[in-house]
Amino acid sequence: MLKGIASKKTKIALDAMGGDHAPEEIVKGALAAVDDDIIDIILVGRENAVREELDKHNSTGRVLDIVHASEVIAMEERPVAAVKEKRESSIVVGIDLLKRGEVAAFVSAGNTGAVMTAATLMLGRTKGIHRPALGAVFPFPTGPLLCLDLGANADCKATSLVHFAKMGSIYMERIFGMGRPRIGLLSSGEEDTKGSQMVQKTHKMLRKSKLNFIGNVEGRDIASGRADVIVTDGFTGNVLLKLGEGLGEMLIGALRKAVAENPNLKEAAGLLEPTFHSVIGTLDYREYGGALLFGVNGNVIVAHGRSDADAIKNAIITAKREVSQDVAGAFRG
Amino acid sequence: MLKGIASKKTKIALDAMGGDHAPEEIVKGALAAVDDDIIDIILVGRENAVREELDKHNSTGRVLDIVHASEVIAMEERPVAAVKEKRESSIVVGIDLLKRGEVAAFVSAGNTGAVMTAATLMLGRTKGIHRPALGAVFPFPTGPLLCLDLGANADCKATSLVHFAKMGSIYMERIFGMGRPRIGLLSSGEEDTKGSQMVQKTHKMLRKSKLNFIGNVEGRDIASGRADVIVTDGFTGNVLLKLGEGLGEMLIGALRKAVAENPNLKEAAGLLEPTFHSVIGTLDYREYGGALLFGVNGNVIVAHGRSDADAIKNAIITAKREVSQDVAGAFRG
Repeated sequence: MLKGIASKKTKIALDAMGGDHAPEEIVKGALAAVDDDIIDIILVGRENAVREELDKHNSTGRVLDIVHASEVIAMEERPVAAVKEKRESSIVVGIDLLKRGEVAAFVSAGNTGAVMTAATLMLGRTKGIHRPALGAVFPFPTGPLLCLDLGANADCKATSLVHFAKMGSIYMERIFGMGRPRIGLLSSGEEDTKGSQMVQKTHKMLRKSKLNFIGNVEGRDIASGRADVIVTDGFTGNVLLKLGEGLGEMLIGALRKAVAENPNLKEAAGLLEPTFHSVIGTLDYREYGGALLFGVNGNVIVAHGRSDADAIKNAIITAKREVSQDVAGAFRG
Repeated sequence: MLKGIASKKTKIALDAMGGDHAPEEIVKGALAAVDDDIIDIILVGRENAVREELDKHNSTGRVLDIVHASEVIAMEERPVAAVKEKRESSIVVGIDLLKRGEVAAFVSAGNTGAVMTAATLMLGRTKGIHRPALGAVFPFPTGPLLCLDLGANADCKATSLVHFAKMGSIYMERIFGMGRPRIGLLSSGEEDTKGSQMVQKTHKMLRKSKLNFIGNVEGRDIASGRADVIVTDGFTGNVLLKLGEGLGEMLIGALRKAVAENPNLKEAAGLLEPTFHSVIGTLDYREYGGALLFGVNGNVIVAHGRSDADAIKNAIITAKREVSQDVAGAFRG
């Protein structure tokens, strides 16, 4: 089914049907990535729809393969049921390409739960890791920060958080060349005795580990640069992540209102726009590089549902980086 | 020990020794409040130190009593031990005044844990409420939002969250005159099935309650105006609260950096400063009105440790409002 020419470049599968702006923006992002000679891409989705998008652009001569997948898993579908029923969906077909070694990574802006479910069921968990986690690197002004779990597991055991910390440490070593990444445990206070029972237990286990554990960190430390990796349960991580997005929207709303009430502020707001944009963009990781699925046997990147072509290209860059540093392999030890 | 004249105005006790700027800013805040004829105040603390501060200002003729308390509980002390050992501390003496009916409320910018512990042990829990909670009203542009628990209980049972919802509903009815406050349950997704086991159980219980339960809300809804009350466990609430503070600091830092790199932006930043200040101030509730202790038999307000005179005055206004609407009484049914 593969129509492209074999290449020495990294090859990835991209879910052409996933996300609010699929397939248009997905195809545009893929074209931008191959134009920059980043990577070879297989677009996975309804062949006619994908080809139609490709035809809108001058894609002659560009190495973009299509693998047909007749079904689409919608954003609001229940992950487990959708993955089991829609075997011909772009997500299941894409993960299958990864499993069979046809590609080195899979990128999707589709239903996050479905991508996680398909990856876990089809690729299997990394040996020694009980629960996969969703993580993302936030490019704070103080340095990159990896946070996990951002929502794969609403209930976590202490053992899982220790696994997240180990994978996070390896990731920051590999991808950012850090010697001994500083691991922080998110809690409701810095003292060892603060936090839920589960967090207190995790604290003790991390103290005994060989990781560079710096102790508990608080919500404010997420932007303070104290840690290189912050681990938390998927419930707290998800709530935090979405709060960050909400606050970004609140800031934009407040600025718009100020300008509407006083047009003299328009110029000032325009001058400072790049600054606001960098702050807000920092809070919405999926806009710039996608989230990473830690603890499955393969490189899987989840981009934001509302990804535009730029966001898709950034997720592709993240995928390439993961592949080149063999992150998934490093987790296996 | 009371030296003031009896008054028909609401009388409250104010911890003169609590907070980073005690007693200076506390005394200044108290003077501002009595000057505005808001309330009668008893300053609780080391008499000499408090009197020295009062003497710096022209306090003749102002109704400000002092009740001596020889000890101080420091910010970093362990709450339970401190409350048990320091029976002459300003926190314990202040809560005792409230217990004996000498005052209608107690306000402190001191050790939050110690205030909660002293209030719970000395005043007792409200009948039917298992665990007191710390709540605060955020003045979002979309309307006031009450969030609780913000940190009193790191581990919560579903029953407690239902209690928080009931108290929150009564509070918003009483204080803001809302007919049927909309209650949201913080979760990692809007669907009923999202969230931890505890949150899913709470969801079912709230569905069966007589409250105006609107279902799960996400982190982004904190600033969206969808709910009037958002309930969560104290671990998540505390992490969120501190993230809000941290992001405010990040925004300020980004603006300072932008101005330092390009001085032409200084004027623009100055023009928009009130807008930034309103966004950041919204995130730090304790700066403007203090947090409320829900579920103890008495009106107790916790102000921010770094409160200045304005913040103290605002916490005093909050206390007066609670007293006038008899919030604590309403919780008892």
